[in-house]
Amino acid sequence: MGSACKPGKVYIVGAGPGDPELITVKGLRLVREADVIFYDRLIPQEVLREAKPSAKLVFVGKAPGKHTYTQDEINRMLVEEACKGKTVVRLKGGDPYVFGRGEEECMYVLEHGVPCEVVPGVTSAIAGPAYAGIPVTHRGIASSFAVVTGREALEKGRRMVNYGAIAKAVDTLVILMGVSNLENIVREILDAGVDPETPVAIVERATMPEQRVVVGNLANIVEKARKAGVKPPAVVVVGKVVRLRDKLWKFA
Amino acid sequence: MGSACKPGKVYIVGAGPGDPELITVKGLRLVREADVIFYDRLIPQEVLREAKPSAKLVFVGKAPGKHTYTQDEINRMLVEEACKGKTVVRLKGGDPYVFGRGEEECMYVLEHGVPCEVVPGVTSAIAGPAYAGIPVTHRGIASSFAVVTGREALEKGRRMVNYGAIAKAVDTLVILMGVSNLENIVREILDAGVDPETPVAIVERATMPEQRVVVGNLANIVEKARKAGVKPPAVVVVGKVVRLRDKLWKFA
Repeated sequence: MGSACKPGKVYIVGAGPGDPELITVKGLRLVREADVIFYDRLIPQEVLREAKPSAKLVFVGKAPGKHTYTQDEINRMLVEEACKGKTVVRLKGGDPYVFGRGEEECMYVLEHGVPCEVVPGVTSAIAGPAYAGIPVTHRGIASSFAVVTGREALEKGRRMVNYGAIAKAVDTLVILMGVSNLENIVREILDAGVDPETPVAIVERATMPEQRVVVGNLANIVEKARKAGVKPPAVVVVGKVVRLRDKLWKFA
Repeated sequence: MGSACKPGKVYIVGAGPGDPELITVKGLRLVREADVIFYDRLIPQEVLREAKPSAKLVFVGKAPGKHTYTQDEINRMLVEEACKGKTVVRLKGGDPYVFGRGEEECMYVLEHGVPCEVVPGVTSAIAGPAYAGIPVTHRGIASSFAVVTGREALEKGRRMVNYGAIAKAVDTLVILMGVSNLENIVREILDAGVDPETPVAIVERATMPEQRVVVGNLANIVEKARKAGVKPPAVVVVGKVVRLRDKLWKFA
């Protein structure tokens, strides 16, 4: 924090999974109070419209044909705006701490002497399946669930996620950002010895008006997803709980 | 649904982890619209005060010296009130589908011909650690997390949760309702070969004004929890991410 910094505050806010009403009361209050909002893709327009007219809205997500900011640039902009005494909201899809890099941003901001607070959000890992009629837990069927990123195999030199071991250890496995890597992930799970009949659901654009659900099992889901032309963003759920979909409320 | 039933609707609503502002906008709207609210323990008073003056509020949680309703009784009351044409809100702590039995209630209600909808909430499994400065994921440190109930060993004849295998498979393990069974769970994790130096945090009354955090490692957390007199409700987090607490915003 330079001597010229008169710090306001940065709030790292989870906007929830897409349904604009699934933002928290706290998150919405801060959006309304913010002087500057840095927002990602998939943030509901209805939420952004709640910003005050004078608020500066900056899109920092990745989208075709638009300038893409690096994480370093975003970090610096957060501090820069807060140092003007502004209330800054960093609005992220889902929950900021579930593969959202909210903790990286908050650490950077705090290191620079600027106050930072995190506002958790409803995660698509749980709400996505819920809107498809799938509870991640159910008495007698699922007493544990795991949430993993599907990007691991693509991005890392050193692999951190052992999809097979995790799928065997827990009752329900939720994979975020897993669509483009689905074939590899499913193969790893099958290679680990998980029953090919294990039900799988893919919830595309979960909780949004365009939500679509593809249901199958480990043996056929890759083919089904291909035929249906499933695209990101999507949540993949693996486990017996998928069968409960027939008996529960679903958005689509 | 008997012929006398003129069904309104049942909403199974997650109230979030305790901070009254962490309820969703949709959840709060439904609380304000409800004719009848069935609520659990640990629902913030601030949220209940938003009910309309004519609303009927029914406590159905477990508390010393109060009548305890069975799950069957709660199920029946939901249908009974909805059949009078009422808008019924079933208000639960956290997320209704994360060990909340929301799916059991929704299934029962739908089976009886009454419309039911689920409103996801912020789960204490993620927000609890967040309010203690602990992200459940972090690039290079945690690419997977699991959430389990700590009650499994106590309640079930047939054990479903293999704490050791899950702790080995994922980077971060979150245990809900695990305090009274902490010693057994920790022993199982250690017996599975997990490093005794693995950091552990217990977040008591997470996100509430009385929040308290006890930090240790697998080798000493049982003793530390005993000395501190940790009581439910509490969230237990196991994994390297606990160390990030020193660098991140925390509520307490």
